[in-house]
Amino acid sequence: MPHLLDVPGMSRWIQRDGPESILSGLARVLEEDLLRWTSFEKIPRVASHTPYGVIELMPITDGHLYSFKYVNGHPLNPARGLQTVTAFGVLADVDNGYPIFFAEMTLLTALRTAAQSALAAREMARSGARVHALIGAGSQAEFQALAFRALLGIDRLRVMDLDGGAVEKVRRNLEPLGFEVVLCESVDEAVAGADVITTCTADKARTAVLHRDQVGPGVHVNAIGGDCPGKTELDPSLLEHARVVVEFAEQTRSEGEIQQLPPEFEVAELWQVLSGEAAGRTDDEEITVFDSVGFALADFSALRYAQQATRGAELLSWIDVIADPDDPKDLFSLVTAADR
Amino acid sequence: MPHLLDVPGMSRWIQRDGPESILSGLARVLEEDLLRWTSFEKIPRVASHTPYGVIELMPITDGHLYSFKYVNGHPLNPARGLQTVTAFGVLADVDNGYPIFFAEMTLLTALRTAAQSALAAREMARSGARVHALIGAGSQAEFQALAFRALLGIDRLRVMDLDGGAVEKVRRNLEPLGFEVVLCESVDEAVAGADVITTCTADKARTAVLHRDQVGPGVHVNAIGGDCPGKTELDPSLLEHARVVVEFAEQTRSEGEIQQLPPEFEVAELWQVLSGEAAGRTDDEEITVFDSVGFALADFSALRYAQQATRGAELLSWIDVIADPDDPKDLFSLVTAADR
Repeated sequence: MPHLLDVPGMSRWIQRDGPESILSGLARVLEEDLLRWTSFEKIPRVASHTPYGVIELMPITDGHLYSFKYVNGHPLNPARGLQTVTAFGVLADVDNGYPIFFAEMTLLTALRTAAQSALAAREMARSGARVHALIGAGSQAEFQALAFRALLGIDRLRVMDLDGGAVEKVRRNLEPLGFEVVLCESVDEAVAGADVITTCTADKARTAVLHRDQVGPGVHVNAIGGDCPGKTELDPSLLEHARVVVEFAEQTRSEGEIQQLPPEFEVAELWQVLSGEAAGRTDDEEITVFDSVGFALADFSALRYAQQATRGAELLSWIDVIADPDDPKDLFSLVTAADR
Repeated sequence: MPHLLDVPGMSRWIQRDGPESILSGLARVLEEDLLRWTSFEKIPRVASHTPYGVIELMPITDGHLYSFKYVNGHPLNPARGLQTVTAFGVLADVDNGYPIFFAEMTLLTALRTAAQSALAAREMARSGARVHALIGAGSQAEFQALAFRALLGIDRLRVMDLDGGAVEKVRRNLEPLGFEVVLCESVDEAVAGADVITTCTADKARTAVLHRDQVGPGVHVNAIGGDCPGKTELDPSLLEHARVVVEFAEQTRSEGEIQQLPPEFEVAELWQVLSGEAAGRTDDEEITVFDSVGFALADFSALRYAQQATRGAELLSWIDVIADPDDPKDLFSLVTAADR
């Protein structure tokens, strides 16, 4: 019977190990998997769009394990008390096709997205980066901040959001953890002196929350909110003047910030930067952009890591969704059995 | 929190309502959905193949509900005590993207496949069909037999399988339910006098368990075992001389029996037969073939039916995989909360 790491189990695991330890662990496993990029069977995610949201399935396999994630993105959800993004995922054994591990992935996606952002920034931000501007203070914000501290030691935050309550929430959550949190009224104020800028807004529209003239030389932009066709956050001219790294170009060309640019616009993939095949940054003056949309490989790594880290722990339960008759050809016995 | 209809719940539901009542209900709901075919967003399923099996995701939506099924197909599994096919599925609300219903679908897939087979045969078999030959006596066999009795009144079976134990199992399961079950040593023996022939074998290979000269005039062939690229059951010349109906031509051209024929080979889709747009049969001499591979719409219908039929019953439990913080923008509160 497959294991289940549900929401209470995931919460308790993060409390037990601590978010920064998990973020570091996730970044390590993700880097391992990215360095064997060519051993994965990769396809762009399978999306079903409506005007108000998207539901996506994100499968991937390395020939031994198979994973997929179900994830939605509905920017209007918070206004009615729901999460913008919810997700769950499954690991399966390719050899026999049986699912082995189910997990909530709303929390896990926030963790893996943040771990990947920080992993990319480790390769792309200037060394000595100290100040992190967060444009958008929704569900992802604290996870992003913690990942950048865990991997890069950055503990000074400048936070801006149109929703003042969300900015207050970030301060309330992060000041007790030792962050310096400056609340900002405008994007201009937030990016002043920032070494890294994370854009994480959620409108399903082409907006430009960050313009070229707002980004100084040498700054690294971690763009995670533009992740659907028709949903972008960056001024295209900022991209044109930056070194841009993506997860999986085939998917990002239609979903990422670079959907605004011609298909021949040059990008590198993160695995190429990690392997040394491509540069993340060539000098301290360059503007760099990690145009992140979310790719199935990071979910594969996250599920693999969560499965290993929670193995044998009381965090797990079971989900009885795999019919298992004594005689495998006698599925009908499950119908006739008096009781099971 | 989404409902969960797990394996024990599904078994108890089938016992409570009876398989034939459920098969009739499924056929009714499936027909309703097939008759609004154009209101669905349809794509061929997303498959990951290895030499020994396949894992597939099958999403579909009508703009209000979204469903997907995870399903594997591993013909070598029974030899090691596992099911060839296991499956689970999810219904979600398109409006907010939240999953609302999880279900085991190994049993439910067997039921929906059988309901669809019988629905197609109701339109395609000669009226007065009495004898059903089953070539292949694995997990699907009893469900197929029951569906043909529920929808067409057919209760005389001729069963053949290379595995004598499987044939005995069908007799043991179905004679007590009032079927006449004749065990046959060969395909020739099984098809003698049959009005309907169901082929349901599972090798991941191009085989021909049924040849043209074994199928008499007026017979309806219900071909459900050939459902992957490189996995077929019928002699192509049988297809060339038959009226062939499929579920979704785009998918069946690569997965079904007709993968053996040129892409211009004429087929009708089942929804067209049900709506009267295409004929299922034009005379009593014609050979008809339902080349069924399994399409997402039937899973959508099955999940929708199972959700309605089990609503409010003790058959259901819950699966806590959707993170639900009090403040939707404060996902991090689930990490810091002392306990949940």
